[in-house]
Amino acid sequence: MINLLMNVVQDSVAVAETTAAVVAEVPAEVTTAVAEAAAAGATALFTANNIWMMLATALVFIMHLGFAGVEAGFGQSKNTVNILFKNTITPIIGLVTYMICGFNLMYPGEFGIIDGVFGFAGFGLDAGEGASIDYAGGGYTYWTDFLFQGMFAATAATIVSGAIAERVKISTYMLFTLIYVGIVYPILGSWKWGGGFLDAAGFYDFAGSTLVHSVGGWGALAGIIVIGPRLGKYVDGKVIDKPGTSVPLAVIGVFLLWLGWFGFNGGSVLSADPDLVSFVLVTTCMAACAGGLFGFFTAYVVFKRLDLGMVLNGILAGLVGITAGADVISVNNSLIVGAVAGVIVVLSAITLDKFKLDDVVGAVSVHLSCGIWGTLAVGIFSMNPEHTFGTQLYGVAMYALGAFPIAFAIFYILKVTVGVRVSEQHEKEGLDTHEHGIRGYTIVYDD
Amino acid sequence: MINLLMNVVQDSVAVAETTAAVVAEVPAEVTTAVAEAAAAGATALFTANNIWMMLATALVFIMHLGFAGVEAGFGQSKNTVNILFKNTITPIIGLVTYMICGFNLMYPGEFGIIDGVFGFAGFGLDAGEGASIDYAGGGYTYWTDFLFQGMFAATAATIVSGAIAERVKISTYMLFTLIYVGIVYPILGSWKWGGGFLDAAGFYDFAGSTLVHSVGGWGALAGIIVIGPRLGKYVDGKVIDKPGTSVPLAVIGVFLLWLGWFGFNGGSVLSADPDLVSFVLVTTCMAACAGGLFGFFTAYVVFKRLDLGMVLNGILAGLVGITAGADVISVNNSLIVGAVAGVIVVLSAITLDKFKLDDVVGAVSVHLSCGIWGTLAVGIFSMNPEHTFGTQLYGVAMYALGAFPIAFAIFYILKVTVGVRVSEQHEKEGLDTHEHGIRGYTIVYDD
Amino acid sequence: MINLLMNVVQDSVAVAETTAAVVAEVPAEVTTAVAEAAAAGATALFTANNIWMMLATALVFIMHLGFAGVEAGFGQSKNTVNILFKNTITPIIGLVTYMICGFNLMYPGEFGIIDGVFGFAGFGLDAGEGASIDYAGGGYTYWTDFLFQGMFAATAATIVSGAIAERVKISTYMLFTLIYVGIVYPILGSWKWGGGFLDAAGFYDFAGSTLVHSVGGWGALAGIIVIGPRLGKYVDGKVIDKPGTSVPLAVIGVFLLWLGWFGFNGGSVLSADPDLVSFVLVTTCMAACAGGLFGFFTAYVVFKRLDLGMVLNGILAGLVGITAGADVISVNNSLIVGAVAGVIVVLSAITLDKFKLDDVVGAVSVHLSCGIWGTLAVGIFSMNPEHTFGTQLYGVAMYALGAFPIAFAIFYILKVTVGVRVSEQHEKEGLDTHEHGIRGYTIVYDD
Repeated sequence: MINLLMNVVQDSVAVAETTAAVVAEVPAEVTTAVAEAAAAGATALFTANNIWMMLATALVFIMHLGFAGVEAGFGQSKNTVNILFKNTITPIIGLVTYMICGFNLMYPGEFGIIDGVFGFAGFGLDAGEGASIDYAGGGYTYWTDFLFQGMFAATAATIVSGAIAERVKISTYMLFTLIYVGIVYPILGSWKWGGGFLDAAGFYDFAGSTLVHSVGGWGALAGIIVIGPRLGKYVDGKVIDKPGTSVPLAVIGVFLLWLGWFGFNGGSVLSADPDLVSFVLVTTCMAACAGGLFGFFTAYVVFKRLDLGMVLNGILAGLVGITAGADVISVNNSLIVGAVAGVIVVLSAITLDKFKLDDVVGAVSVHLSCGIWGTLAVGIFSMNPEHTFGTQLYGVAMYALGAFPIAFAIFYILKVTVGVRVSEQHEKEGLDTHEHGIRGYTIVYDD
Repeated sequence: MINLLMNVVQDSVAVAETTAAVVAEVPAEVTTAVAEAAAAGATALFTANNIWMMLATALVFIMHLGFAGVEAGFGQSKNTVNILFKNTITPIIGLVTYMICGFNLMYPGEFGIIDGVFGFAGFGLDAGEGASIDYAGGGYTYWTDFLFQGMFAATAATIVSGAIAERVKISTYMLFTLIYVGIVYPILGSWKWGGGFLDAAGFYDFAGSTLVHSVGGWGALAGIIVIGPRLGKYVDGKVIDKPGTSVPLAVIGVFLLWLGWFGFNGGSVLSADPDLVSFVLVTTCMAACAGGLFGFFTAYVVFKRLDLGMVLNGILAGLVGITAGADVISVNNSLIVGAVAGVIVVLSAITLDKFKLDDVVGAVSVHLSCGIWGTLAVGIFSMNPEHTFGTQLYGVAMYALGAFPIAFAIFYILKVTVGVRVSEQHEKEGLDTHEHGIRGYTIVYDD
Repeated sequence: MINLLMNVVQDSVAVAETTAAVVAEVPAEVTTAVAEAAAAGATALFTANNIWMMLATALVFIMHLGFAGVEAGFGQSKNTVNILFKNTITPIIGLVTYMICGFNLMYPGEFGIIDGVFGFAGFGLDAGEGASIDYAGGGYTYWTDFLFQGMFAATAATIVSGAIAERVKISTYMLFTLIYVGIVYPILGSWKWGGGFLDAAGFYDFAGSTLVHSVGGWGALAGIIVIGPRLGKYVDGKVIDKPGTSVPLAVIGVFLLWLGWFGFNGGSVLSADPDLVSFVLVTTCMAACAGGLFGFFTAYVVFKRLDLGMVLNGILAGLVGITAGADVISVNNSLIVGAVAGVIVVLSAITLDKFKLDDVVGAVSVHLSCGIWGTLAVGIFSMNPEHTFGTQLYGVAMYALGAFPIAFAIFYILKVTVGVRVSEQHEKEGLDTHEHGIRGYTIVYDD
């Protein structure tokens, strides 16, 4: 009787303990189901994030058409094909060199060569094993990363292209692009985005006011100094206007650039984080608006006309200006950043002309002057107290020292070797018929 | 012995009861894990929804380039820059005024001033605390909401711009835009989308056949009445054709508008709901097709030529027509809605010319005539039995009474104060050289 | 005492057993909560996938503007309106016929009529019950499927349009499009994508190098043979250049086509699978780059000039070439596929001219020659060992036999009945003034 009772009790205890143990470790099928549900959510978020990043890539891609529109629109008709040739070949050279070496120069992982300044992870692309969701914390894949960054890279050369148009030798331009986009841009980029010494120093550049736009702008400034102004641009101390061939084309270009900036800044969040990305789109658009308005006002005061060109460049100025701090500057302050950029772009263009620096599309004023302003503006307006004006100024200075002398050296070496300028005859008669054998526009009704 | 046994039993009971209690309330780590998995799914859905809404915003933004293309393409070359200036500055004024007051006039929350008619939630933007996923049921963020609605707002003024082009004083147009987009459009919009009296009355306008297109169209009609036709448009009872400067530009514009309508209508679902959004895209595209075909057929019958302009306006007519009911009209019926719109747009254009109402791009015919048709079509074809023709007609009438007299008053006051029309000389010689100092096209090969 | 003890023990056992049972079958609320969490994840993934597919649809849509740009840009100014008319009406006819019968010819489900070759699931669209997430394994909805495939369909006719431009009767072209897009393209497409005999044979065509581009290209080749060259194109054994009216328009077109290919190839994954879609975008873009570079190099060797037209067609050639295998060809090999396509497109254009086959925009060279190359390239480079050169060649041959004779027959029958060519006078003086009553460009400053 006691034994029986004892057995029952022991059974009871065993069942209870087993149960307790089972509960303690949670039933396997529940654990599995919960893990699967969690993984489904994570996969969906990864997929959504990657969609955003791929579309941001597409939007940055279409910026190359935007640049083509602005440059061909503001350029003269006799050089339209030449300008478009440059703008078509630039993203091609950009992507190919970025694939060959640029991506691994910009994101070397370890800086094996000069710590924080120069590293290289090897030639070509390699997604490796098991990248996917783990590659960037579920934000995007290796392939998306490459393509997004590659689209950025070509931008730097495109900026140069617009400034030096209408007299640069195209073969020289292509050599410059090869070196500048393939090697210089990614190494300079590694200083901050690749985790180099400026990243360690606390310098902040959200989407590239400095890393992309100023780097392109310094190249443009070096180019126009070395190459010199177009024939007949500065005569007897006067600035001679060279009217652009198609204002509609320039407008198409600027709207496409604004559209592309949805991806340029929106994608720089590096995920589809709803609050942050949508906030960035608002600051980006409001800065563009303020830039356009103040480009308009400033030009009206200075030139006494409704200057569409300065509205357009004001929009671009606002966009470049907000790019460094689109995620850390309040919406109200984004208006200020854009407005100041809109004033700067006009004054900068006037100043360049004073120094006989002939910039066909105003690339230096838009990308360099406003790129610097935007980077410094982070030090003034950032909601993150760790961002300081001093550090931002330090970053701007480092990029000036890194980009300008190198760009100047490349152009200078090209000048004394292969030459940087087309012949006087070709420049006068236009590059299209001489180098490309066709004209940009052939509107004939009586044949 | 008994005591020992008693202890064992009591232990057993205690373990069993604890276990039962734990199981009854579900183990905490399971509950937490399940909640986390559910939250991961919800976050992913929120992220996906918001991506769709941000891209819809980008697509509506690019409609402003579409409008620019249509208007500059159909306008005369001597006014190209002027038209493009208006179309560039319009979304800028639109977004800035929408930020300052429009958003909070259109979505006041409480109608504190006149119930169901007029409310105001204060100046500027404020996302508040904890908006994010809770702001709109996981559909989009506060910032996405503002930017999407802001892109819509500027559309109303752009519609006016196309109708009154080539003779309106640009400063007057900008003043009109400031008032119409900043104040009139959002207050009228609050009547339905802001939860006002027409929403309570059961009026339905999915994406704005009335709230956006008719409101813009009423403004356009008021404008062309007050400003009068272009010089030389109606001579000796004849309508003189003023050929547009660039048909390719108009085609680019219409395709971009069609593309933009993917966001205009697709985004008006206010989430990425797969079934509903994709259904809306199909009805939208089929209505565009039917509109283009019947614009073509109607023009062929009337004018005996293959009239590309009427195919293009037919496409836009179909798009405007389906906008009020894209989510509640079957795909087969969307073809009917579009086809009727395609006929209406041609007949409307002819009728306006009979009354010497000079509309440069056919904005009144596209946006007002077809906006009214589309809104009434909901009363005829909606799959939702609560939508009635009577209520739709009531809504159309309310917006006619709300928009037209106010727009007329604004234009009239501007006419008798600052003037609405450029000088006869400027109109004849073109606005570009006089007001902007440059020409739209400079195609020169012999310089 | 013993009884009391016995009761306690029995209670204890009962509690323990109940608990064990409860745990064994997992509490209902946990099961429900886990299922809900899993469903939330699945819904979010479905929503994300469908967003990608809808945007891919929008991107393929904008390719129609891309084609319009290329064709109007490369065409002569006297036919600009005519070309744009064709390119505007083509997607309209394409979508409407695809809705009426094309979709159900291409995806018949069961091949009820001729097994593996010809089936028809009935007229019109019907989403059926409970489609949604179950329709395509959570990849996209029925409506997205229709619209995405419908946008593809119209492409085939657009390709034909570019080749036969400037002399084809527009009514004849529209009849051809009606038949070719409405009936021929979808039946041929069903052979592979509809699960027909070529699918069973192991033929592979990821996104349509053959199913879309070659089918269009065969139609184009048939068209230029039946219709003959433009007047004055081949004179005394010489090829007379007919300069395109606007190079910027052609550049806009090519960039938009490249952009559209993000959706054309990226959407052909039929979900937003992050790794696969982003990989496809990289192979697509790298092939485009290589095509552009080698089009440039080849043209430089052959023509001794910087031939922008061949850079542009090289880009398109690379895109067409990679389309069949964008998901199964490595990134390095995608460069080879593109480079070869860039060479082929130039040589093909020269060869066609040798045979006096006048192709206005090079459509046969881009879409047929490179479509064949790309399809065969899958047999050479595919990472999937099941893809063989023999099977790919078989597929190419079947589509040649399916598409060319039918296209030829349609054009021939149209030629001997309604006629395929405009009058000599109309061709000389341009189609625009005669058939459309307006000109493409009216740039006038002295009126």
